[in-house]
Order: sequence, then structure tokens, then C-alpha cells
Amino acid sequence: MNIQKFRIGKPFNTEAVILDFPIESAVPEYIRVDNEEGKIYISLPLDSQDIIYGLGEQMGGINKRGRKYRSFCSDDPYHTEEKEALYGAHNFFIISGKTTVGYFIDFPGQIHWDMGFMEEDKISITIDGTNADIYVISGNGENEIVKDFRTIIGTSYMPPMWAFGYQQSRWSYPDKNEINRIIEGYEKAGIPLDTVYLDIDYMDNFKDFTINQKAFPDFEKYVAELKEKGIRLIPIIDAGIKWEKGFDVYEEGAKNNYFCKDRKGNDFKAAVWPGICCFPDYLKADARRWFGDKFLTLTKKGIQGFWIDMNEPALFYSKEKYQEAVDYVKEYSGEDLNCWEFFSSRDKFTQLSNNNEDYKNMMHLDGTVCHYDVHNLYGYMMTKGVCESLPKDTLLFSRASYIGSHRYGGIWTGDNASWWSHILLNLRMLPSLNMCGYLYIGADCGGFNNNASRELLLRWMQLSVFTPLFRNHSALGTRSQEAFAFGNSEDFKKVIEVRYRLIPYLYSLVKKCAENNEMMFKPLGFEFKDKLSLECDDQLLIGDEIMIAPIYQQNKTGRTVYLPEEMTFVKLSGSDVTHKETLKKGIHYIDVAIDEVPFFVRKDKKVPLCNPAKNVDNLDITIAEYI
Amino acid sequence: MNIQKFRIGKPFNTEAVILDFPIESAVPEYIRVDNEEGKIYISLPLDSQDIIYGLGEQMGGINKRGRKYRSFCSDDPYHTEEKEALYGAHNFFIISGKTTVGYFIDFPGQIHWDMGFMEEDKISITIDGTNADIYVISGNGENEIVKDFRTIIGTSYMPPMWAFGYQQSRWSYPDKNEINRIIEGYEKAGIPLDTVYLDIDYMDNFKDFTINQKAFPDFEKYVAELKEKGIRLIPIIDAGIKWEKGFDVYEEGAKNNYFCKDRKGNDFKAAVWPGICCFPDYLKADARRWFGDKFLTLTKKGIQGFWIDMNEPALFYSKEKYQEAVDYVKEYSGEDLNCWEFFSSRDKFTQLSNNNEDYKNMMHLDGTVCHYDVHNLYGYMMTKGVCESLPKDTLLFSRASYIGSHRYGGIWTGDNASWWSHILLNLRMLPSLNMCGYLYIGADCGGFNNNASRELLLRWMQLSVFTPLFRNHSALGTRSQEAFAFGNSEDFKKVIEVRYRLIPYLYSLVKKCAENNEMMFKPLGFEFKDKLSLECDDQLLIGDEIMIAPIYQQNKTGRTVYLPEEMTFVKLSGSDVTHKETLKKGIHYIDVAIDEVPFFVRKDKKVPLCNPAKNVDNLDITIAEYI
Repeated sequence: MNIQKFRIGKPFNTEAVILDFPIESAVPEYIRVDNEEGKIYISLPLDSQDIIYGLGEQMGGINKRGRKYRSFCSDDPYHTEEKEALYGAHNFFIISGKTTVGYFIDFPGQIHWDMGFMEEDKISITIDGTNADIYVISGNGENEIVKDFRTIIGTSYMPPMWAFGYQQSRWSYPDKNEINRIIEGYEKAGIPLDTVYLDIDYMDNFKDFTINQKAFPDFEKYVAELKEKGIRLIPIIDAGIKWEKGFDVYEEGAKNNYFCKDRKGNDFKAAVWPGICCFPDYLKADARRWFGDKFLTLTKKGIQGFWIDMNEPALFYSKEKYQEAVDYVKEYSGEDLNCWEFFSSRDKFTQLSNNNEDYKNMMHLDGTVCHYDVHNLYGYMMTKGVCESLPKDTLLFSRASYIGSHRYGGIWTGDNASWWSHILLNLRMLPSLNMCGYLYIGADCGGFNNNASRELLLRWMQLSVFTPLFRNHSALGTRSQEAFAFGNSEDFKKVIEVRYRLIPYLYSLVKKCAENNEMMFKPLGFEFKDKLSLECDDQLLIGDEIMIAPIYQQNKTGRTVYLPEEMTFVKLSGSDVTHKETLKKGIHYIDVAIDEVPFFVRKDKKVPLCNPAKNVDNLDITIAEYI
Repeated sequence: MNIQKFRIGKPFNTEAVILDFPIESAVPEYIRVDNEEGKIYISLPLDSQDIIYGLGEQMGGINKRGRKYRSFCSDDPYHTEEKEALYGAHNFFIISGKTTVGYFIDFPGQIHWDMGFMEEDKISITIDGTNADIYVISGNGENEIVKDFRTIIGTSYMPPMWAFGYQQSRWSYPDKNEINRIIEGYEKAGIPLDTVYLDIDYMDNFKDFTINQKAFPDFEKYVAELKEKGIRLIPIIDAGIKWEKGFDVYEEGAKNNYFCKDRKGNDFKAAVWPGICCFPDYLKADARRWFGDKFLTLTKKGIQGFWIDMNEPALFYSKEKYQEAVDYVKEYSGEDLNCWEFFSSRDKFTQLSNNNEDYKNMMHLDGTVCHYDVHNLYGYMMTKGVCESLPKDTLLFSRASYIGSHRYGGIWTGDNASWWSHILLNLRMLPSLNMCGYLYIGADCGGFNNNASRELLLRWMQLSVFTPLFRNHSALGTRSQEAFAFGNSEDFKKVIEVRYRLIPYLYSLVKKCAENNEMMFKPLGFEFKDKLSLECDDQLLIGDEIMIAPIYQQNKTGRTVYLPEEMTFVKLSGSDVTHKETLKKGIHYIDVAIDEVPFFVRKDKKVPLCNPAKNVDNLDITIAEYI
């Protein structure tokens, strides 16, 4: 490994890197520290042909060049093109060109990335602080650099095999009856199903580690009943604890000083789903342990998997700032506001959520560390705490993340939308997340916000069939999005069954990638250096065997695909191989019916398929055929 | 012409159709009137192969199938995929398949369109009212149906030739000095320029027909000075008139009863840019005439073109509803709001703008007609009034529109964003707008909201070079977006010069399309019936001569193109023809440099080119060569 470590100031230990490195004696010239401004500036030249890979969970293409980004875990449910920050903060990128070099900035606060946006031939990075570790990784190409980086950040989380089954979620299935209706829907349609998710409404008034007794009169028994059928219930746990006298979790946290403080030394409070909450200080080992152990109350009831949420942390409002907003608009009562006065009074309310002033008032480690400066560690340290308490082979994935958390759980890419463009966004994030260590990953298939069409969901599934986390999830108020809800459910059955045929392949591939610090999903440009491969933004390589090129546009029955070398074009549908044809290197147009899963098998490679089953517990992973 | 006219109830006369038709004696079964609900339902079957064209200014693809839409002129600056309504209401569509039929619903209020979304094999249209004229147009294919429809709605507006020059806008160039700086920037870079736009800040406190004297000490002289250089200033005029005692325009309107009323019979008031405004009742002939004649105060100062805005109408807030919002949130002062209480207090402020309760309180024609029921006519009737007062050959285009307004002015497609996907959105709307009569059209090149990259603007220009309105426009607070602002301005010069070379062709094509009721931009499926043409969503035919296939993705130096027949692939750059090659029918990959404009010349056709010039006044339209 050829890795240089540069240290500026006295960095907070993020535990992202698990190997010790000697610190270089001199910081290179392209790194400039401005102590007066309290910032570090990094400036790197870009050659006209350079491609930028990485940055994990971000908008933009596979090539990150020509845009701005921000590392600051953000609960922003509108993933429009200009957005600079999503839920994760993944500060690793590679500049690939005449020379190919990887960079990791280990800094837990905000970073601004201008990747050739304001000036096309320059990367300008601004770190909002003066303490950081910077790793520069040289190696023989992208694959080697990624492998070296993955080696120093440690082995990725590996979920149990049943977590590779098809999963159904919604905000929310509020009670037993609704969950039974969903499971019956799948059973009647003969569509495989492995899990049903419990979103926030399963709790008593959104309080972590409680269960609404009316909705689930005997939860433990119900969990067991479903497990009997091969279906697992996956409850959500949020980051904040309801501030409520007498609520045992709150009382324990308060008594033991487990919560973040405000600048006055009181427990920091802000509202989330349950109303006003306190926030466990996951950066404290004892608080983290206490919170993680709470999950055992649920595993004891038979729960084998969790998704943890709102851990950027998302804050709806603080009472102080809400009162400020009310006072502000009261001033204008009866007045004729001009346009700017009107906009600012509206903004007072729209800007209450996830407000930096609240983050700056939130303190960690007994008031010694300001949350704003270590913001990106919150979801990571929550994931770590939970993972370390959970029994082995429990499914765990998080919304917020920072490199390091890949060792403790997977992630899903948050509140996307039922937009066609988000199929492509989903595809493009897969390799960049793999680069940063995240292997158990997936987007909400079909889209979380807005209404999905039948066609959108089926086309999206034709991609999700390949993602380790294959979960259909949708928001309150949107159209029913279960695979049986659109009519002609035979098409859905055929597509989802293909997933089950691929599970032995996908599971062992993810396992191998975890063990060897490799990527499951790769840009074509990691293997092929011709122009069309380097610019390809809507196809991916999977392992050494597969290339995918899903359809991600409405009202299309086919698409063009670029083959960088000879491959076998395959379409699967249910138990059938509906198409198999060797295609030469070059551009091809392929037809893909709505009930088919298309992919390409690379030259001299074979992909094992088993027979489909109604869930993973019932899956015979014996190879039925090779394709 | 084979047109059937069905009448339900007693429709409001929108003047959309200018020819008289006999009314069919019986309404067909697929139209159902529900007088109790106050709605008309239209249900049409869709064959699996059917394509839906039309609906004018809308999101979605060229094929409108599989989505929902809404006809309700809306000032919504976030053009995300799920949006159902933009600024225009264009109720004409064609179902193209085994049989091909056009439908026009002449109804001035809200219409909901489910074009095969909830059920894939069915169109379900809900008209929010029980009075409407419905036209069903049968004919030999899409082109004939469009021509027949265009014939019955009357001849499209045709702008002066200089309006085909390259145009620069921004919210805002607030004064003479800034405008001079912009013009100098173009002059120094040698980039052609025909107009500079004045957005709202040129006025005195946003008051229509006023000019900020400090910013423009001698406006008339300045207009003349710029005209001398071949540059025209294009001021904005908004729909609302500031409510201000002593402001002559307000006083005249109030005295003469020209303003819309509220339900109590007072002048209806709501806030827009100037604060509280009154709204001319453009549905009244005398008010419309009075407002139109006001423009002559500016044409007398030498102004030759206008853009009219905020005429959906956009309403920021009404005092009544603002007070309601304040009272609502005051209730919660000091309380711990739960999440729903918090969301609803925030929504009270976010839902103040363009609120239906305000539209329902706004009355036309001396209190006899509720605005909500005729909402979509407001921008249309404003355009009509202005056009009828203006001297011949004045440039006029509007943001809001309804079919009929195409006779009086062009439109631009409102507040888009500097998103790559909006290049494609721009392309896809061009043929649907042509279908509805709009020929002088264009989107804000480079995107209005958010920051543009150099590459985005250049790629967008490579499309806009072909749109009749070629205007670069950007919002307050965004990065400078002028063609000289990004460095290496030679690339911009080369692309914009190609526009000037094409002006004789484009101008005469638009003129011919206006005279013959034809489309300038056509989907490939209007001419070719093979599958790839029918599904093609990112290429267009222009006239009978050209096919375009612009690059609309970041970090690409080429793209695949489908040629439905043999064509000549041409690239122009400045005065040069950089590429010319005959390509066969089929899929091709083309390279396009950042300073080139690519297009395809159809078999046995020729496109005339003149030499570029610094503006249209200096353009020699003699043909220099044919390509």
C-alpha cells in the first residue's frame, strides 16, 4: 500500500481508519490552513480528461466532476439535481486520468466540495475546521486504490442471507391487521416476500422501544407467527428519545447523563416525531452501549432486524426557534408586508428544521464538543452502538452514515421519490457507496415520496433485483405500492422470482467483496478504458460476471447498451430464461419486456441460478443451472 | 375537416376556437356529466400501443402516457417530475395508435388528467365544472389533426425578426451601469447579442409602467442609445397593480372599475412584488383595453418588446390568510407541538401563496364570475389586451397561457432550473406547444433557478440555437450566467454564431408554420412509424429539413442517435462546418465538442445558412451556403 497520511491540527478521532499510519512530516502545498478563518483549503488541478469517482451517497453522475457537493448528513427528502448533501458523509474520492490517486479527508464536520464547478480545471475543497487527517492513496488504478482504502477502514458489515429476500415497507403499516393484509396480498399473488417493515406508527406515540399494545396485542407471539411463515418484521428505531416524565427510557438516559447537552448544560431538546426529544450522546461509550442494549428488549421478542432512522440527526424544531418565528410574524400582524418581509416570515417557519443554530447549541461528551463540529458522526456512532449490542446475524441498516459505520451496518439512501430519474440516481450511487465500504445498500424501490406508476415500479425492480437491499417503501398519503396493488401481478411475480434465483450468487458475491475489500458494483471505467466505457453513466459491472443496463425511462420497451467487449445478453422471467444471445463489442439496442430482468454475462463467465422460492427460509440454494 | 363539437351545459366563451361549428345533438357515452358533483368525467380506452401527444406546457415525456396532469395555470418554480401543472393550460391531445384522434376540451377552469396512470389502459379526465365544449378531431394522422386543430384556433403570433437574435436576461440588471457592463462583456468577447431584459427591478418599487429614475435617469435616451448599437431593451410588466393612493395607474383602475372584485364587492387585493396589489379584470374588454394602452407609454419611449409575467395570476399572500396563519401559530406559543401540529403551523405559511381560497374570493365581470372557475383565462386575456394595443411587430410573450393566447403572443416556459434534466424537458415541450399553437417559444437557457456550470450552459445552448426564443435567463442569487462570464468565451461565441447563421432558415420556417398552421418541432413519431421513432424522446424533427439530437448529460462528449432514414450529420462551429457525413438509417454514436452545434439534414433537403453578425440589425440574410 502506498498511503500518505497528513495531519493538520489535532483531529477528533472518528475511528474511520482502523490501521495506524506514520504521519508525514510536511503537509503538501495544495493543502492550505487558514487559522484565522478556521478553515482548511485543498486545491487540486484537473486535467481535461480526468474523471472523479467517489463521494458515496451524493447526487450527480458516476463521474462527480462539474458539480458542488457538501459533506453534512442532511434529512432532505427532495433529491433534486442541485442538492449538495444527502444523508451520508463519505469523504473519499479518486481522480482518475493520466495519474490516478485517491483522497480521504477524515473530518467529522462540514466539507464543501467544488469538483470542477466554478473552475472546470480545478477541485476546490473547503473544510470547515482546522483539524483533519488527510490520506492520499496512490496505486495501480482505481480497483487497487479502493482495495487499499477499504483495507484501512476495515471490513464491511455483512447481513444474514434472508436480508437478500424481497422486502416490503411503508410509512406505515400501523397494526397487525394491515400487516396481515399485506402478507395475504403477496401470498394470494404468489409473489415471494421475506420481510415486512414497521415504520414509526408501531410504537406508542413514536417512543423508541415501546409497542402500541392496541395495534399489536401480543407482539412476541405475532413475531413468532410470522417467522413460522418465513416472514420477519423489521421495526424502525429513531435517534431521539421522547422527553416525557415517567417514560423509562427517558428517565434512565436523563439520570445517567446519556443525553447531549445544550450550551447551558441542560439536556438538549428539540422536536422530532414524538414531539420534544432528548438525544442520546452516541459519542459517549456508555450512552452508546446503553442505547444499543435497549434493542435487546426487541430481539428478545424475536426481532432479527432493524432500520435506524432520523440519525443525521433530523430536528423538526426547537422551542426557542419556534417561539422566535412566532414573535417575528406577530410583528407583522395587520401590516401590509412587502415581498421581502413576506418571504422572510415564511422562511422563519420553513427554516426551523435541521437548523444550524440548533446544531450549534447541541453538545457532546459532557459539553466539551459542539455537535456542529462532529455532526457527521452522529448516525455512525449510533450504528456502532447498536451493532455492538445486537446478536450476530442481526440485520441492521441506517439512514445517516460516515465512513467507519460501514463496519457496523448497511445503509439505505433515504427518502427518494417515485421519479424515473431516481432509478438512475439509485444506479449511480451503488459503486460510489461500495468505494466507501457500504455493501449492504439499496434505495427505496418504487420511490418513497409521490405516487408510483405500475411501469415505474416494475422497471425499478429490474434494477433492484441486483441490489443487496431490495426493499419497496413508500410514504404516507401515496398510492399503495405493494407488488400486488397494481393488477396483473404475474409481471411482478416474474421479476421478483428472478431475485430469488440470483440470491446464492448475490449473497456469496457480497460476502466475497466484504472479505476481500472489493466492490460489488463497478463503473465500466474501472475495467475498460475506452471512451464509451469511461463516459458510461447508466450501466454497471457486478462482480466479475455481470453487466447491467436497466431501463429507466417511461414508455420505453428497449434501450441502447454499450458492450465494451463480447458478452451474452440474457433475460430472465420467473423460472424462464426468455433470451440468451451472444453480442459483440459495440452499441446494441435491446428489447426488454415489463416482466423480464435483463443483464449481460461477461465472456467466459457463468452466473449460477437456483430455483425461486416464496422466501429465503424456503430457498434451496442448490444451483439449478448456470447462465 | 372532420370535427365534432359537443356542448355540455352553457360554457363560458373562451374565444379559443374562432370558427363556428354546429353542436352535435347527442353527447357520446364516454362523456358523463354529474351535476350533483358539479363535474364532467371523460373516460377513453387505451390500446397497449397507443401514444398520447399534446397537453402543451407539461412535465413528462413526448408521450404523455402513464402520468397525471392538471390544467391550472400555476406559478410553481420547482419543476420536479411529479408536478402536474405549470404555467400554461393547454387542453389538446391526440391518441395515436390503430386509430388516431384529437381532443380539445374548451374549459377555462381546472381539469385533472389521468393519462393511463392509475389504470394503464384508460384515460380518465375530470373537469371541475359542468359547462364545457369538447371537440373531437378525426383525420389522417397526427399532422392533419394538428393542422385542423390549429385552423380552428386561429393563426399563431409571429414576432419581428430581431426577436430571433440571442437574448440576455437576469433577475435583475437593476440599472444602466449594470446593463452597460453586460453589453460590454458581450462586445469584448465578440459574442452576438440582440436584447437585454429588464426584470422587475427597473421599475419604481415594482409598479407597472413606472421607471426607477435613479437607475435610468433618461430612459428614452438610453433606449435610443442602445438601439443605435442594435440592442433592444425588453421590460417586464406584471399582472397586478400596486394598491397605492395617488399612483395614477391604480387610481385610474379603481375609479373606472377595472379591477377584479372580492366577494364583498370591494376591489380584490393580494400581495405580489409591490406588496398589496389590485388585479385588472382582463376579462372585461374596457379594462383590457385600458391596460394594453398603458404599454404605449413605454413604446413611445422606444421600447419594442415586452414580457408579461405573474399572470396565472401569482399571489404571494392575502392579508386575510396571512392573519389567519399568524393567529394559528400564536395559539401554539410556548406549547410543545407534536409533529402534526408543527407541520400544520409550517404549512399555514407555505400554503399562503396561490391559495385556492383567494382565487375563490376573486371575482370577474363586476362580480358575476368567480375567478377560480375561469382561472386559466387570466394570462390569456392579459396577453390579448396587450397585443391589441401594441404597434404591429412588437415582441410580446407571456408566462401564463391558455389556447387562444397563441394568436397574441409567444410564451416562455417559466422558472426552470439549471438542471441537466431541464434541457430534455425543454426539448420535449417544444412539439406539444407547437401542437397547441405556440410557435414563438423557448425555455430559460442555462436554467433560471440554481447555479449553472459552463458545460451545462453550452450544452443547453446547443439546443436553444434552434428554439425561436433563445434567451439566457437566471435568478437573483445565482452565479452569473452570461455567455462571457465563464471564461474561454470563444466556445460560446462559436455556438451563438451558429444561431445567427440559421436565422433566415428559422425565421422563414416559423413564418411558414404560422401561415400554414403547421408545427415547427415534431416528434419523430409524427413522420416515422417504426418502434424506435415512436419511442424516441430525446430527438426532434424541425420543419421538413432537420433532425436534432442535442447532448443533455453532464461529462459526455457524445451520445447515441437514432436515424429513421439516411441523413447527413452536420456540425457547425462559428462560421465553420466542422463535420459533414452521410449516415445510414440506424443507431449511431456521435461525438460533439463543447463548441459545436450538431444536427442532421434530412435526405434530399438543404438548410440555408447566412454569415453570422453581431446582431440581427447587422445580419445580412443573403444565403452564404447551403448545408
